[in-house]
Amino acid sequence: MRISIAQLNFIVGDFDGNLVKMLDAVKVAKSERADIICFSELSTCAYPPRDFLEFENFIKKAEKTVDKLAKAAQGIAIIVGSPTVNPVIEGKDLYNSAIFLADGKRFHTQHKALLPTYDIFDEYRYFEPATDFQVVEYKGKRIALSICEDIWNIGNENPLYTVCPLDLMVSQGVDLVFNLSASPFTFKHAEDRYHILKTNADRYKVPIFYVNHVGAQTELIFDGGSIVISGNGNIHEELPYFEEAIRTYELDDINAETQNIEQPKVKMQLIYDALVTGVRDYFQKLGFKKAILGLSGGLDSALTAVIAAKALGSENVRVLLMPSQYSSDHSIKDAEDLAKNLGIQYDIVPIKSVYNQYSETLGTLFLDTKADVTEENIQARIRGMLLMAMSNKFGNILLNTSNKSELAVGYGTLYGDLCGGISVIGDIYKTEVFELSRFINKDDEIIPWNTITKPPSAELRPDQKDSDSLPEYDILDAILFQYIENQKGPKEIVSMGYDKKLVKRILRLVNINEFKRHQTAPVLRVSTKAFGMGRRMPIVGKYLT
Amino acid sequence: MRISIAQLNFIVGDFDGNLVKMLDAVKVAKSERADIICFSELSTCAYPPRDFLEFENFIKKAEKTVDKLAKAAQGIAIIVGSPTVNPVIEGKDLYNSAIFLADGKRFHTQHKALLPTYDIFDEYRYFEPATDFQVVEYKGKRIALSICEDIWNIGNENPLYTVCPLDLMVSQGVDLVFNLSASPFTFKHAEDRYHILKTNADRYKVPIFYVNHVGAQTELIFDGGSIVISGNGNIHEELPYFEEAIRTYELDDINAETQNIEQPKVKMQLIYDALVTGVRDYFQKLGFKKAILGLSGGLDSALTAVIAAKALGSENVRVLLMPSQYSSDHSIKDAEDLAKNLGIQYDIVPIKSVYNQYSETLGTLFLDTKADVTEENIQARIRGMLLMAMSNKFGNILLNTSNKSELAVGYGTLYGDLCGGISVIGDIYKTEVFELSRFINKDDEIIPWNTITKPPSAELRPDQKDSDSLPEYDILDAILFQYIENQKGPKEIVSMGYDKKLVKRILRLVNINEFKRHQTAPVLRVSTKAFGMGRRMPIVGKYLT
Repeated sequence: MRISIAQLNFIVGDFDGNLVKMLDAVKVAKSERADIICFSELSTCAYPPRDFLEFENFIKKAEKTVDKLAKAAQGIAIIVGSPTVNPVIEGKDLYNSAIFLADGKRFHTQHKALLPTYDIFDEYRYFEPATDFQVVEYKGKRIALSICEDIWNIGNENPLYTVCPLDLMVSQGVDLVFNLSASPFTFKHAEDRYHILKTNADRYKVPIFYVNHVGAQTELIFDGGSIVISGNGNIHEELPYFEEAIRTYELDDINAETQNIEQPKVKMQLIYDALVTGVRDYFQKLGFKKAILGLSGGLDSALTAVIAAKALGSENVRVLLMPSQYSSDHSIKDAEDLAKNLGIQYDIVPIKSVYNQYSETLGTLFLDTKADVTEENIQARIRGMLLMAMSNKFGNILLNTSNKSELAVGYGTLYGDLCGGISVIGDIYKTEVFELSRFINKDDEIIPWNTITKPPSAELRPDQKDSDSLPEYDILDAILFQYIENQKGPKEIVSMGYDKKLVKRILRLVNINEFKRHQTAPVLRVSTKAFGMGRRMPIVGKYLT
Repeated sequence: MRISIAQLNFIVGDFDGNLVKMLDAVKVAKSERADIICFSELSTCAYPPRDFLEFENFIKKAEKTVDKLAKAAQGIAIIVGSPTVNPVIEGKDLYNSAIFLADGKRFHTQHKALLPTYDIFDEYRYFEPATDFQVVEYKGKRIALSICEDIWNIGNENPLYTVCPLDLMVSQGVDLVFNLSASPFTFKHAEDRYHILKTNADRYKVPIFYVNHVGAQTELIFDGGSIVISGNGNIHEELPYFEEAIRTYELDDINAETQNIEQPKVKMQLIYDALVTGVRDYFQKLGFKKAILGLSGGLDSALTAVIAAKALGSENVRVLLMPSQYSSDHSIKDAEDLAKNLGIQYDIVPIKSVYNQYSETLGTLFLDTKADVTEENIQARIRGMLLMAMSNKFGNILLNTSNKSELAVGYGTLYGDLCGGISVIGDIYKTEVFELSRFINKDDEIIPWNTITKPPSAELRPDQKDSDSLPEYDILDAILFQYIENQKGPKEIVSMGYDKKLVKRILRLVNINEFKRHQTAPVLRVSTKAFGMGRRMPIVGKYLT
């Protein structure tokens, strides 16, 4: 038996486009004499469709897409993921299903049982869990269909769930397993995925075809990396990360695999490629080409510019340098050097005269007040506004350049440097910003080294340094990580050896700045806990403050 | 038997404050010789705690609060709502529980079975559903404890669920039922709630004490309106809307009730009171007193100012009038008249000189370009920035003044008039803005009538009218309502008699402006489908565009 798998980059709700991609892949599979081709989870509508699933019209379009695909299932079987209607009145209206199409029709359907409802996942909002598990027989082989999370409760060892779908299916006698996935990237995910597949293969002693989604859907990035693993636990092939791919295999070859062939997993390479994919797909899928951002001479905007140039091409990235009276000479030079290194268009637009005009306009109202954060915010907001004016006039989407440490403690100006359509590095702590920048510079000086080595500063008042108001970034980030990723409370963090007052202060800053994060752009997600849809904290509340 | 119920205004995570409120209520109940006092759902931590529930530290604090309350349960039983730990490893870590405290200890616990996971609700993200249902006996009475949604599947007629908790409890023999709720306000909710309680009472023939949360938690508003209903289906008392209240009843009096006494339910009064509560609690619970907003002379900002003045007091509301060259004379006069009517401080700050300075600064970059939406946005953004400068300098929170129709079609400038900490009327369609304004003016001219009767305009270019770029609001709002509240697709809406091209255009506008709504303030929710946490749509997607 010959089997094809296709990891494709779908667009949410683009039923026609997604169908065309799948039909093209079916052609390739047929030309390679495949008996079966398998796509990823919810491949008709793309993942995650979110509340579009609540529209009857949307579900009908998904059903029609499956029907059209069924017509192409002649001489080849097609396994497609799609939402289907729950015929029983009680329970949720839909199932998240894997549909086995053969001889021009729906041959077998298996629904998903384990519905992730945590972090960025809301599956129980829409779907009823499967309670019935049946194996499909095709061309003499007994085949189990599973969907994503279904293979993540091996032998009921995942505390979240009470059912182990593969235990129930493999006990019926199974020759091979398909898993249709849409498993979002984190920098640890390829490692975890490998471990899960290996454990499944070891337990069931049958080959598994794990087919993942690839490409970005707003903040969620899917890395592909589909895996074909033999029943003896050896990886036969791990597909490329962050690219579409179609592969065809002879089942016997997989069963006979004696080597374990994995892809290298380098954290900074994975994060870099993920962010490039995130920016590229955000623009491509929205139909935009050109980006704009402000280059301050600091590292965050430099790194964002590098990622943007890689994702969109240097010719499509434009930057403004917007010095104020507090900008240091090296800032302008560093920013210019970077722009030249990247070959991107840059303009210098000093903000002093607009700033002065604001001061004059507000003069009477601000009589007898002292300069404070207001004046710093005005500078940041003038820059945000100039960038948005360029965006409106020329159609360049503004990229947000805030890092995760800043977003966490609210070290940024709402409607100022927090502006932008997408946050490129908002899930990267400042210490990781340094790490990633050094990684990018490993062969050539793309980012001016001075930008990397000088002390970080917002340059909103004379001789300002980040370290004036924040602790050193290695300490700050470690505390933030315990609070955000590990969800530890103040006592637990202090018991790890951090200063009590500092911990209280930082956690308080995180909490009271929830209102800012609520109004910022979607953040490209590369960690296990990013700001945005996966972290839902109250804005008004008293805990830990 | 004498029974007290307390509808209180808790703060999320304010365990100490919430405990004090409950202890005070226990004292009142004791002084009124009550045998039992009942509080609302999750009363220890307030509703909705959201992802704070994932912090072990948070759950421990809730448990300690219950223990402290238990000590007060001497000579009186206390029913409190709190998250509790699921002792079984499999399944979610927590239950949403009603705990019956008596003789200084936990006497009985009943978990919630029906966990809403739709719209603004995420309960299955955190909680395991109850599978065990036991009645508690106290002072010779058999008592059933239920939590919110548990009474909304009467006889298994709600298609979402497969269990009817009260069927299972009442069959064990029950003298009275408590329902601990945190049921967010919509303008229809009091009506629905009445219907559900009546149906439950008719089915089970026992008295029900429905105890609701009151007050606002960021965007969610709870109206109180707790209900005591007799087993013969008569409402003995419906508690006030939008106020805290403690009441004590003699059980025999309730059983003997022969009249059905409801509160009047006037849509515009309910919405008005809800929005006032929403603004009041947003400020109070964050520890702020003063608001600022821009008064354009148009109706949206006028209505917002009226609500703010009512919520915070005239002395705490300050406004800026920021005319441009396109502002009409009547706009300034209308805005001044309103400010005088309300007795709020106002200043006039023309934006022309800042605007001219932006034009000069952008001059070279904008060479050979035509005026377009960019220049309109600059005006809106200057206003947003002046308001934010005032907010930063004087600590006044900026109120957003966008209405639901505008937010829906993206008729507003990101980082301009979309600025603000909370959106006051963002869940009110423009047609409802008119209706509510007329309601407010029913006795006196609070909002200048000219503001209500003149054609709406953004005044960002000469002689601009909303109707230049949008259809009449009655048609626009009707189409939006079908798409947003009723989740109808384009075909279904067209089949209701609306113009096909217009429907397509409006639905497309709603979709392509998801990115703007993603970055706006929380919207006070008064409808069944508000923008924000209850409507989760993809930003990048192709459906219906």
